[in-house]
Amino acid sequence: MDLQHPFHDENGDSLHEECGVFGAINAGSEAATTTALGLHALQHRGQEAAGISSFDGTHFYTRRGLGHVAENFSSAESIAELPGFMAVGHVRYSTTGGAGLRNVQPLYADLASGGFAIAHNGNISNAATLREELVGKGAIFQSTSDTEVIIHLVATSRYPTMLDKLTDALRLVEGAYALIVATPRGMAACRDPLGIRPLQMGRMGDAVVFASETVAFDVVGAKFEREVEPGELIEVDFDGSIRSHRPFGDNPPRPCIFEHVYFSRPDSIFAGRSVYEARKAIGSELAIEAPCEADLVVPVPDSGVPAAIGYAQQSGLPFELGIIRSHYVGRTFIQPSDGARHSGVRRKHNANRGLVEGKRIVLIDDSIVRGTTSMKIVEMMRDAGATEVHFRVASPPTAHSCYYGVDTPERSKLLAARMELEPMREFIKADSLAFISIDGLYRAVGRESRDKACPQFCDACFTGDYPTRLTDFTRNQQGAAQLSFPENKPANKVA
Amino acid sequence: MDLQHPFHDENGDSLHEECGVFGAINAGSEAATTTALGLHALQHRGQEAAGISSFDGTHFYTRRGLGHVAENFSSAESIAELPGFMAVGHVRYSTTGGAGLRNVQPLYADLASGGFAIAHNGNISNAATLREELVGKGAIFQSTSDTEVIIHLVATSRYPTMLDKLTDALRLVEGAYALIVATPRGMAACRDPLGIRPLQMGRMGDAVVFASETVAFDVVGAKFEREVEPGELIEVDFDGSIRSHRPFGDNPPRPCIFEHVYFSRPDSIFAGRSVYEARKAIGSELAIEAPCEADLVVPVPDSGVPAAIGYAQQSGLPFELGIIRSHYVGRTFIQPSDGARHSGVRRKHNANRGLVEGKRIVLIDDSIVRGTTSMKIVEMMRDAGATEVHFRVASPPTAHSCYYGVDTPERSKLLAARMELEPMREFIKADSLAFISIDGLYRAVGRESRDKACPQFCDACFTGDYPTRLTDFTRNQQGAAQLSFPENKPANKVA
Amino acid sequence: MDLQHPFHDENGDSLHEECGVFGAINAGSEAATTTALGLHALQHRGQEAAGISSFDGTHFYTRRGLGHVAENFSSAESIAELPGFMAVGHVRYSTTGGAGLRNVQPLYADLASGGFAIAHNGNISNAATLREELVGKGAIFQSTSDTEVIIHLVATSRYPTMLDKLTDALRLVEGAYALIVATPRGMAACRDPLGIRPLQMGRMGDAVVFASETVAFDVVGAKFEREVEPGELIEVDFDGSIRSHRPFGDNPPRPCIFEHVYFSRPDSIFAGRSVYEARKAIGSELAIEAPCEADLVVPVPDSGVPAAIGYAQQSGLPFELGIIRSHYVGRTFIQPSDGARHSGVRRKHNANRGLVEGKRIVLIDDSIVRGTTSMKIVEMMRDAGATEVHFRVASPPTAHSCYYGVDTPERSKLLAARMELEPMREFIKADSLAFISIDGLYRAVGRESRDKACPQFCDACFTGDYPTRLTDFTRNQQGAAQLSFPENKPANKVA
Amino acid sequence: MDLQHPFHDENGDSLHEECGVFGAINAGSEAATTTALGLHALQHRGQEAAGISSFDGTHFYTRRGLGHVAENFSSAESIAELPGFMAVGHVRYSTTGGAGLRNVQPLYADLASGGFAIAHNGNISNAATLREELVGKGAIFQSTSDTEVIIHLVATSRYPTMLDKLTDALRLVEGAYALIVATPRGMAACRDPLGIRPLQMGRMGDAVVFASETVAFDVVGAKFEREVEPGELIEVDFDGSIRSHRPFGDNPPRPCIFEHVYFSRPDSIFAGRSVYEARKAIGSELAIEAPCEADLVVPVPDSGVPAAIGYAQQSGLPFELGIIRSHYVGRTFIQPSDGARHSGVRRKHNANRGLVEGKRIVLIDDSIVRGTTSMKIVEMMRDAGATEVHFRVASPPTAHSCYYGVDTPERSKLLAARMELEPMREFIKADSLAFISIDGLYRAVGRESRDKACPQFCDACFTGDYPTRLTDFTRNQQGAAQLSFPENKPANKVA
Repeated sequence: MDLQHPFHDENGDSLHEECGVFGAINAGSEAATTTALGLHALQHRGQEAAGISSFDGTHFYTRRGLGHVAENFSSAESIAELPGFMAVGHVRYSTTGGAGLRNVQPLYADLASGGFAIAHNGNISNAATLREELVGKGAIFQSTSDTEVIIHLVATSRYPTMLDKLTDALRLVEGAYALIVATPRGMAACRDPLGIRPLQMGRMGDAVVFASETVAFDVVGAKFEREVEPGELIEVDFDGSIRSHRPFGDNPPRPCIFEHVYFSRPDSIFAGRSVYEARKAIGSELAIEAPCEADLVVPVPDSGVPAAIGYAQQSGLPFELGIIRSHYVGRTFIQPSDGARHSGVRRKHNANRGLVEGKRIVLIDDSIVRGTTSMKIVEMMRDAGATEVHFRVASPPTAHSCYYGVDTPERSKLLAARMELEPMREFIKADSLAFISIDGLYRAVGRESRDKACPQFCDACFTGDYPTRLTDFTRNQQGAAQLSFPENKPANKVA
Repeated sequence: MDLQHPFHDENGDSLHEECGVFGAINAGSEAATTTALGLHALQHRGQEAAGISSFDGTHFYTRRGLGHVAENFSSAESIAELPGFMAVGHVRYSTTGGAGLRNVQPLYADLASGGFAIAHNGNISNAATLREELVGKGAIFQSTSDTEVIIHLVATSRYPTMLDKLTDALRLVEGAYALIVATPRGMAACRDPLGIRPLQMGRMGDAVVFASETVAFDVVGAKFEREVEPGELIEVDFDGSIRSHRPFGDNPPRPCIFEHVYFSRPDSIFAGRSVYEARKAIGSELAIEAPCEADLVVPVPDSGVPAAIGYAQQSGLPFELGIIRSHYVGRTFIQPSDGARHSGVRRKHNANRGLVEGKRIVLIDDSIVRGTTSMKIVEMMRDAGATEVHFRVASPPTAHSCYYGVDTPERSKLLAARMELEPMREFIKADSLAFISIDGLYRAVGRESRDKACPQFCDACFTGDYPTRLTDFTRNQQGAAQLSFPENKPANKVA
Repeated sequence: MDLQHPFHDENGDSLHEECGVFGAINAGSEAATTTALGLHALQHRGQEAAGISSFDGTHFYTRRGLGHVAENFSSAESIAELPGFMAVGHVRYSTTGGAGLRNVQPLYADLASGGFAIAHNGNISNAATLREELVGKGAIFQSTSDTEVIIHLVATSRYPTMLDKLTDALRLVEGAYALIVATPRGMAACRDPLGIRPLQMGRMGDAVVFASETVAFDVVGAKFEREVEPGELIEVDFDGSIRSHRPFGDNPPRPCIFEHVYFSRPDSIFAGRSVYEARKAIGSELAIEAPCEADLVVPVPDSGVPAAIGYAQQSGLPFELGIIRSHYVGRTFIQPSDGARHSGVRRKHNANRGLVEGKRIVLIDDSIVRGTTSMKIVEMMRDAGATEVHFRVASPPTAHSCYYGVDTPERSKLLAARMELEPMREFIKADSLAFISIDGLYRAVGRESRDKACPQFCDACFTGDYPTRLTDFTRNQQGAAQLSFPENKPANKVA
Repeated sequence: MDLQHPFHDENGDSLHEECGVFGAINAGSEAATTTALGLHALQHRGQEAAGISSFDGTHFYTRRGLGHVAENFSSAESIAELPGFMAVGHVRYSTTGGAGLRNVQPLYADLASGGFAIAHNGNISNAATLREELVGKGAIFQSTSDTEVIIHLVATSRYPTMLDKLTDALRLVEGAYALIVATPRGMAACRDPLGIRPLQMGRMGDAVVFASETVAFDVVGAKFEREVEPGELIEVDFDGSIRSHRPFGDNPPRPCIFEHVYFSRPDSIFAGRSVYEARKAIGSELAIEAPCEADLVVPVPDSGVPAAIGYAQQSGLPFELGIIRSHYVGRTFIQPSDGARHSGVRRKHNANRGLVEGKRIVLIDDSIVRGTTSMKIVEMMRDAGATEVHFRVASPPTAHSCYYGVDTPERSKLLAARMELEPMREFIKADSLAFISIDGLYRAVGRESRDKACPQFCDACFTGDYPTRLTDFTRNQQGAAQLSFPENKPANKVA
């Protein structure tokens, strides 16, 4: 089971992590091989595009493409184009506007100090403002990516060393970032001061590897060492020496709690805790907070499965596959007008009618975003003969947009921003509806409760409590000049 | 969850259903739309190629392609090429030799009586012998498919009506077949005298639909009506009249028991029983026959899940996801030599280390074919810290090849044909190994026990008890002239 | 310069040879290599599709594709798929209806006598009638090509040897054909009784080669030996022995005179005469028959060049490039509405204004089909400042359709079938217009004059004097049942 | 006929113009349509890639691709992606290293002053030096093109207006350029101070158009107005006003004389003279300077044709097509080892044996670069039976490399840099060899003779007399640090 949630694909009814990053240094001749495999393990964090830059001691090599990692980096030919002992890679979920190949990372630039390749997971919340200033000084941007701002800040920094230049640049940016940078001197991995986006460190023989999630280490055969800490910048040299820096001082960390709920793979370790165990604990808490008289616990596959197991074990109700998922999805078919109303949904999921008929069921899903798919699933269960459908959600109501690299619908589209609990229940037509409480969620991930004064996680999508300034957003709100990036509309073949 | 078993893909370590068929008649303007969606629901029965033929009252239209249904039939353009109220479709697993596009079904021919499109699931065990005779009389074959033999037998039949011609042809063939035929007079659906391969009938408004499995009816929005019976030939006319024929007399049926074990989707009904329930019952029988002291029941995803739930419920042990499956598979990556020994396996499945470590686990898989993947999974569990690994298999030992349309390795490659139980356990390095008994399997699918004199299913892959003659195989064994089909070696662009 | 006439491409305003054939036997390991290169030299005879079948003593191999020879057969991979010492190839101009890949030749069939590959240039004028009879007896056709009729006649012939079967089949067909056939016994090359379509024989070391035109021998490095004679069937065995047969008795030959006018390359030898010399002689005759007071002789490039040189040398007027041709053609661009009226034409040809301005010019073109392009060229000359434009045509008026393998517009579209000389002149807006006389054309190709009783060439497109029966055409005219081939409408990926 | 010289393609035995440019402003809704067609007419100046940027008053749109104009810009979809009334386009011959899509022009940048699209024909001879300085100040280059230097100089210029910024930038560059620039204020077209590369101006209704050659005006339906003068910068505003500037003062012009010899299409007007007439005059001069006893004048098609006509008319010898060119070239076929030695050449050109046999011929070609193809053509003529082969070349010996945008082999590969006339004759195995003299060439293009003190053309490839400084070249010669551009080796999918 993984985290892909096919119900959500069709109409944007989901939250999407926008990126995954991977880096390997001192990896003999296999930096690109390892990075390709590591990115493949992070594929769930971004399916739209993938890229790798490598360095062989003399030259940098970059290959980027639309589509999955396997489509771009599984052939011997593709790997042969990426020689060297250091590589950095990126997978990406496409942002609005589909800006094409030039926004695919790693971004690469020839600086006066030499080559500079960067992979970035997150979002810089003052990127438009910084870009405006840089262009005013003569900088020429080649992408519409916020990441490119970092490169120009590095290129124009007056500090002497690469470490100083990078620190200088990062001090000017606000928002969330997990970065891996490759230069002719070595590799740097860095997390924003609050550690909103995740970054992990591992070892594989002489090589040091970095990845958004620990599952990538399992897949490439590396040993998980530790998290890159919030606000930490780790330098690795070609002689194997590793130095940790703390350029932003100390801040209480605020890692994204949604990694536990949905983004990370269940076999990853995040913030010191097994994601699978966290999700089972969420299900268990939910069973305590919102118990239910029913015959079966049914997960919405596949992301709802661990929480459903937790709910079933806590409640004593049997865990059953009441919805069968097809693995062959991807494109929307033309629908027969004549057929059932819901064949669109059923192409991806199908009620296990023999099981469900005549039963009271508890459905477990990870979250409700717009609510339309939840409504369809409830209806599908009833059509298959379920007598009662109780909906339990393994996260609090999602009522606020994310500005830190997660693709959320605008706020007005979020069901929980539009209505209270009972109208939500009516909207999805369930017999009962319950969300885990925010404190229940914190308990499930190992805290006593949420520290209101200084929350232990970023939970802004549930609470609206944003841990950083949102400069661009605020300027836009104030009716300032349009801050969205200028766009040289690209055709499909354009660099 | 579906039936795809990604561990098996890599080295042919699995059994493959070779085909799925779907037909729709009197479907207004949506015959092709419905057929495309129905084939998509049958995609697990054949991922290598797909085709649809339609008829609009005047002309037949055919479109066939390599790859998935979605790649070939999800666009409006592709459907627009297939107008009409009748359509027949086919998905196919490639056979040895990869004979290319010309073997993709439906096969179509212009006969003196008009167009003739046919989709076939199964295998004709005297096809080479019949082909030799037909070519001797001047017939020109355009494919190497056994199905084409049926067309030539129909084309040269001296009977007057299409029904008589088809019956005449089918009386000459032996083996297994579920056929759907479209002609300018209507549609015929037919199952071989023993009903080895499945075929189901449904309704959707005025339309009559046929499919290999009932899940296709759920997905297109049709109502399941009944099985096409073994030896039954059903004619449907354009005026909606339906006639059932029994051209081969009465025979005790022998449907393939492996449909319950692995081939069919769990949300299908086969031989009158829910496949999901059958699999849970197998797991339950297995828990009774082969209990185990352990901490966790872990399915090999995804095909082992229902049996694992059954095993867990019967045994009282907790069901847990000890193996996480990646959905992003398909191509083999270059492996870092430096990395772990098993990253090839881990690219598809990864041990949920946090869960497994220090535990005694019962692994549940659907079958063992060559045994190499079972060995790797056991090893992966141990690497993740499992203290004991007990392997339980939801089918009896697979020790014989199938000649009825299932792609099995040659007998000498089957682990159970090579060794007894204890050597098998040693081979896969499990702490214990058990298969369900043949009688246990029959009990799980609803029979008291296997009727040795006249088994209620075809179980030749377990027992070697083949229910039909195997003419071509026998002639080959007798050192007769080479009976394999002549082959005009096709290049990739060849018709 | 070659024969391609880009003015004509855009709107079907030309006659197209439909095919070229090439064969090589006893060619060591290079039969396919030689055939690919030979087909490339015949590319002007058919640009839509190409195919090669080879034989290595055991198996036949076939590769066919849409597009040019270079796109399909220039790579080492493509040639490696075609091993063996015998090969037969085909290039094809697409016929009406674009029947797709399955009509691309060579056609191949597995007969009781073994493999049978055939490449055919020409058209069988009773193919629909024969097909009807064959299907009535149970034959299944895989293409809509008239050529497939020959294969079925061979397959069902009751004669014992391949030579007898082939002769038996050819006695039943009427029309025009130059055939090359490959079987497990050797190669047969054959021309219809009147020799309407050309076929040449050459040598290249131990290999015997056949081709539609001698230029193919120059390009592959073979020595031209002689024409295959009208009505001759040449057998070549694998031991090198060559036997000539005359299965149809003796008939006065009627080769297609349009090969001299337009189809063949100027560097080919046809009917014993250099095509370049023939075209120059046509120009020379034209200068005598239709002299002109003018300043310049301007060819319509490239096919009008040799006749223009002949006209210039005979008349003493200077030969000049008054029209410049672009080599980069192929697709039609969107036209600016604002621009000149004729940019469509000018994309392909452009008036050499500096030369033409203020001059009286004689334009030389090879033929007039619909007349629309001739009109545009005249207009383009006037727009460039020509004071007088005199049009001279190197063939008599084309007033009749061809039924022998040349793609002509239906008769009602032919300008010369619709009007007399003076209205034609008015239509194309020339100051004067003249065609070479039919006797002048015969003189130019080396005959004293046309023998009215028994013409020395097939000149039916000029005279309407068809040298064979036209069975299918006559039946269609008589209101008989529709004889056009049934068509299983193919989608682009269909075999 | 055009200028493509297929003999030369195979082994780099030719000089290649590196670019063509086209621009249209105030063209209603058809700026992109007109530009696409104009680029198509300039296709001979660059076949490797093409691009267009358009502006609709608000946004810029850019589409670039590898391959021909027709492959990238003939569809309605491609044009629909380029809305607006102003467009600038570029065709490009690939330079060494094949730097891929990101070097395809127009280059586009978002400057503080708004969008900036630039198309450039020529070469900047101090580009590496300038780039080094710019990168030192923090500029990030996205291509390895010398053209990008201009953009960065504009972006960082401290002058207020776009005109001043551009002038400021161009004063810093040395070398050859014909530029078309599009900004939100209008269009600028500019030629370097010496006018080495050509640029023409035309009108088409309200639109003003610019192009490398006048033939583009004929093809789009525009009227040729005048040359952009050497050192002139023409501004065109959206209100139709046109202003001419002379930012570099007055210099005696030095346009490239090779445009007359080979680069320009014969139907273009260059430096006030018809290219066709110039080439005929060269042939005529050559007949006077180097007469010959022979039977036929044979052009090496197609570029040698006009000079051959001139030679024939002056000498009284007949002009004949002794070499027939195939239009179907492009890929190299595998050659039969068994065949003739020269089938590689013959695939493209074939001797017209019937004409050539037993004759003394004068071959006319435009230039000799490496000499290998000249040698093969002479040999092909002899193999076809020519008794004497006299080689006449329509340009002086090419003995020096070009640094102004023409792709020449390094000097040591140029035949004329390696040996004197008699050894050259021996090398190509001709009976006699003559080049036109440098003064003869000047006479042919309308000058009395070459002004040695101040030559009227750039003829550096013949004389070594370079009209500008060559800063990068000189620095490289002096053993300075490597000046070639850094290269982030691109894979085929890379932006």
